[in-house]
Amino acid sequence: MVQLYVFGHPFETDAVVQSVSETAGNPPIGTIATTHGFSFTHTLEAQDVVYGLGEANRGINKRGFRYVNHCSDTPSHTEDLSSLYAAHNFIVLSGTNHIGLFFDYPTTITFDIGYTQQDTLSVTCDSANLKLYVIQGASAYDVVKEFRSLIGPSYIPPKFAFGFGQSRWGYKTRKDFERVVQEHRKHHIPLDMVYMDIDYMEDYKDFTVNSEEFPDFPAFVQEMREQGVHLVPIIDAGVKIEKGYPVYEEGVQKGYFCKREDGSDFEAAVWPGLTHFPDVLNPEVRQWFGNWYRVLVDAGIDGFWNDMNEPAIFYSPEGLAQVKTSMERYLADSTGALSHHSVLDALNRLSNSSEDYQRFYHKVQGEWVRHDRVHNLFGYNMTRAAGEALAQLAPDRRILLFSRSSYIGMHRYGGVWTGDNMSWWSHILLNIKMMPSLNMCGFLYCGADLGGFGCNTTRDLLLRWLAFGVFTPLMRNHSALGTREQEFYQFENPQDFRHIISVRYRLIPYLYSEFMKAALGNDLYFKPLSFLYPNDPLACEVEDQLMIGNEVMVAPVYQQNATGRYVYLPEEMLFVKFCPDGTLTQTVLPAGVHHVSVALNEVPLFIRQGHTIPLAQPCETVADLSTQPLECIGYSGATYTLYDDDGMCRSCTLEGHTTILIKE
Amino acid sequence: MVQLYVFGHPFETDAVVQSVSETAGNPPIGTIATTHGFSFTHTLEAQDVVYGLGEANRGINKRGFRYVNHCSDTPSHTEDLSSLYAAHNFIVLSGTNHIGLFFDYPTTITFDIGYTQQDTLSVTCDSANLKLYVIQGASAYDVVKEFRSLIGPSYIPPKFAFGFGQSRWGYKTRKDFERVVQEHRKHHIPLDMVYMDIDYMEDYKDFTVNSEEFPDFPAFVQEMREQGVHLVPIIDAGVKIEKGYPVYEEGVQKGYFCKREDGSDFEAAVWPGLTHFPDVLNPEVRQWFGNWYRVLVDAGIDGFWNDMNEPAIFYSPEGLAQVKTSMERYLADSTGALSHHSVLDALNRLSNSSEDYQRFYHKVQGEWVRHDRVHNLFGYNMTRAAGEALAQLAPDRRILLFSRSSYIGMHRYGGVWTGDNMSWWSHILLNIKMMPSLNMCGFLYCGADLGGFGCNTTRDLLLRWLAFGVFTPLMRNHSALGTREQEFYQFENPQDFRHIISVRYRLIPYLYSEFMKAALGNDLYFKPLSFLYPNDPLACEVEDQLMIGNEVMVAPVYQQNATGRYVYLPEEMLFVKFCPDGTLTQTVLPAGVHHVSVALNEVPLFIRQGHTIPLAQPCETVADLSTQPLECIGYSGATYTLYDDDGMCRSCTLEGHTTILIKE
Repeated sequence: MVQLYVFGHPFETDAVVQSVSETAGNPPIGTIATTHGFSFTHTLEAQDVVYGLGEANRGINKRGFRYVNHCSDTPSHTEDLSSLYAAHNFIVLSGTNHIGLFFDYPTTITFDIGYTQQDTLSVTCDSANLKLYVIQGASAYDVVKEFRSLIGPSYIPPKFAFGFGQSRWGYKTRKDFERVVQEHRKHHIPLDMVYMDIDYMEDYKDFTVNSEEFPDFPAFVQEMREQGVHLVPIIDAGVKIEKGYPVYEEGVQKGYFCKREDGSDFEAAVWPGLTHFPDVLNPEVRQWFGNWYRVLVDAGIDGFWNDMNEPAIFYSPEGLAQVKTSMERYLADSTGALSHHSVLDALNRLSNSSEDYQRFYHKVQGEWVRHDRVHNLFGYNMTRAAGEALAQLAPDRRILLFSRSSYIGMHRYGGVWTGDNMSWWSHILLNIKMMPSLNMCGFLYCGADLGGFGCNTTRDLLLRWLAFGVFTPLMRNHSALGTREQEFYQFENPQDFRHIISVRYRLIPYLYSEFMKAALGNDLYFKPLSFLYPNDPLACEVEDQLMIGNEVMVAPVYQQNATGRYVYLPEEMLFVKFCPDGTLTQTVLPAGVHHVSVALNEVPLFIRQGHTIPLAQPCETVADLSTQPLECIGYSGATYTLYDDDGMCRSCTLEGHTTILIKE
Repeated sequence: MVQLYVFGHPFETDAVVQSVSETAGNPPIGTIATTHGFSFTHTLEAQDVVYGLGEANRGINKRGFRYVNHCSDTPSHTEDLSSLYAAHNFIVLSGTNHIGLFFDYPTTITFDIGYTQQDTLSVTCDSANLKLYVIQGASAYDVVKEFRSLIGPSYIPPKFAFGFGQSRWGYKTRKDFERVVQEHRKHHIPLDMVYMDIDYMEDYKDFTVNSEEFPDFPAFVQEMREQGVHLVPIIDAGVKIEKGYPVYEEGVQKGYFCKREDGSDFEAAVWPGLTHFPDVLNPEVRQWFGNWYRVLVDAGIDGFWNDMNEPAIFYSPEGLAQVKTSMERYLADSTGALSHHSVLDALNRLSNSSEDYQRFYHKVQGEWVRHDRVHNLFGYNMTRAAGEALAQLAPDRRILLFSRSSYIGMHRYGGVWTGDNMSWWSHILLNIKMMPSLNMCGFLYCGADLGGFGCNTTRDLLLRWLAFGVFTPLMRNHSALGTREQEFYQFENPQDFRHIISVRYRLIPYLYSEFMKAALGNDLYFKPLSFLYPNDPLACEVEDQLMIGNEVMVAPVYQQNATGRYVYLPEEMLFVKFCPDGTLTQTVLPAGVHHVSVALNEVPLFIRQGHTIPLAQPCETVADLSTQPLECIGYSGATYTLYDDDGMCRSCTLEGHTTILIKE
């Protein structure tokens, strides 16, 4: 049951697709105050679990922290970080009752979930203009499915996007890209995508390509495709200010950029230097900006990642002027009253500053809306611009699309990656914990930068992370400029990496089938164990194992120097290991806790009692994946309903695309 | 067996107390190169474990990372941080053979333990002037004990230092300190020490007290003592430059401060503003600086913590001049060639810069030695100065003393705390992992800032951390200015905190007894499970459980929202929980893995089969601890050899201080 409570005059976010009539009075739980901004307060029982928040820090159970949903370009995801790139304002309180709460509110909102006071949930924001959707269900899982149907179907990528993709900030030349493909093919490491980070562009200008390196870009794209590889370029939010650059010229001429209070186009420095931000909250601008993707689609590109769309701001001219003033004051100070910290503080405030977010405006239905009042909708609408346009440009096929910043509603237009993580073991665990939470908020096509984006990876970290990445729909190795090179062929024994990636490809029939069932059925691809075993208290507490679809449980190893790990089985399961020699070990383990040994070059998974999953033969691209015949592994006599399609159709349904397989 | 290999002309660190004659030729393992600096390279077998490095990041098994031993004031201890406050250059390679390696080298040295190449240990430093001690033994534990006897006996604090201490950077007024004591006494939370961070001083001048707040400091110290509380002031490395301040005046006059190349006294800004560093590598200066502690000892103080002694440098006048130049250049640049990053980079390089460490000199046996060549010895020798002086000033009693920076050798003069950690759950685990490694390097009196120093704690984090802190010799709650106040009485239900601290006091007879046995026998207080169960492969991999003494195993809960944890028992053990109502639950658990439930307000421990431990009655200060009669918990018929003394004697031995207890 969904109830809608409306406070004040909410901004229309288009997060929800179902029409829900407003309920009068007070929500069934919580105390609401609207005198100073908005607050929702509720006392939690000791055993209540709080799920949700999508891309957020900390656990699957979100209790014990204060989350500030404010889309932020913050690369060092330490435990105390309260804001990440996304704002997914949906939580589920699960205890005696199961209640979902979606705070449809377009800017900064704080979820204090037992942080200030251990038993108190408090959700607060500055303005009492919002919609609150309250969903009651028989279980947390029920509530989530109801919410998912409220917000509409999740984005479905082309099937090739279930292959492996290699990326690095720093690939610049044609040779850089060619080498990646050559090395993967030479080592027979499967590969479907190579990502193009910012250096493929001409001076970081969106929808341009460095013509010195790529004099005939369509031919290069085609050449890569002939080697089975899709190039996936990045698109940034800021449009470079440069005379003669048509995106800039046209945007200025048509008044499509965000404006200062005085009506001039707001300027923000990002990678290209000074840029303007397209006013993607305006449908006309969305259509215009989205149509620019055609430049690359026409060149043969069939996948994009949208970045820097919180939007990230390195500095504004106004902010920089303040910094200069602080330097002048400091240098002129002969009294010693000012310290160099006055300058350092000014410099540290320069990026992504709240002052800058108050300096520009969007035009929404003829009204000017200051950016800080709708901040969390920017990345969503940039990706919506692309998604809507690509549906027009390529009506007969899916285009790969994912974004760094997002808000619920964007899940209909693209996937997400979890942004600039680090080569930390704890970030494998964070990756594990984020996945089901993202799924709950509608984001099914998701994954983290495997091996870690920032700082230096190690071979063992990368191998362990990949063994989980095998199961994330978006499987990408990505790293930052200046860090250790982390392509697989940079390490000893690349065959270990080949093996793990090969296992991914063998599992694609299952992973794709489960993904599609989740997408078409408003269901979850990743589930916490509690969703399937709600009456098992030990299962309900597990945060480092996940259910994938209905058949598989994963329990990744995420501790350095561990030769295995403890795993909790809520029921008997078949423990399967994919060994580097191509064989499988299969052991039935009874319910309970077990220590399982897993070598660095093995991929473990668990199949639930009475279930079976399909397994393809190894191959090097998704296009080469043969589904006839599929091997089945699991329990004898068990059946599996396989979903499959051409990997491209935009209007697929479960009907007519499923086959029942039986494990002999 | 200990062998000594000498390369070049080593600097005498006084780390080793035994006389070992030099062995000619090459060490029994590894390849050494001395052409460009020094390198030791050795191939690790897959199953080799590497222990050691004392206060260092990452695991008990140090494999898989590159550690740069360079004493550093670096507060954010993320996984990728390679340098902490200390430099403990001792490792043990444990596999088919067990070999200890101590690289006695006074400045930056890098341990690449399978980071660059997974199977390769590589130890490198810039200068091939060092001593390498190689210790072979029958086990890793054997090697460690041999090493401990090589480096001499560990520092022993007074018994009251096993009580609980409350600290916060920010206590300033007399009222601040009084309130801490009053609140603890009001809530009956045991308390033996209140730490005085930098604000007790007059303008951060060492060996001064803010006379406005403390017009009669000895009387205040006495007043606190009458309430059972020892005040423990901080002493910083830098001596404020201020006319009329006697420490400064005398140091300048006697030439006791570190000098620039031109012979002038080097200036470094720290908390007091510009300071000079006492040249503690010079024995005459050590004696002089150490004697200043008398000012506070005479006021009744019997404990100190030495801080900022890496030494930390906020900036030097030379560095600041460079920053100003960078600002002037940036402001004058009309071409746009310079960005504000040129200034930001200069500002970020300002603190603890390698350039500053090259700007000053020590006088060692008449020779000038540039600081960067002996950098890791500064904190060691500052604390040695204090320890040597205090032994003269108080020959008949022990004084509490611990330090932030350290080098092996300092363990004879004081303990350590692990510096500025964070209120992160992962730092409970880091605390657990550091303790046995510190013990291996001789540092027995040690602990972390419980609850976390930086960023905001939560009630549950603090409770869980304390339940481990119950077992660390140094048990202190400390937090930073600007963070959430984390005294126990700031949270709901302070009785939960009272209970946990009470358990600490009940355990002090055991903890002190085991500490003293370890200190007097060159043994370990904290041991990895592998040291007691070397033939149990699962035990050998455990990094989140520790043995304490010979009887107890601890398995702290360090995950948020967990109601318990999995624990591996290498043998049958008695699982004991101290419940908040004062009762104990006692359950015999067979060898193997178990899930144990532990509430936030419970303290769990495990007693080994056939063992017993003593338990005192609850009390509120160590002075009130009654050892007659002691209750015994554990296995019936088991005996325990209790060490006890007056808690003050400086020349205690095991003989004559032990009693055999029998569990009925």
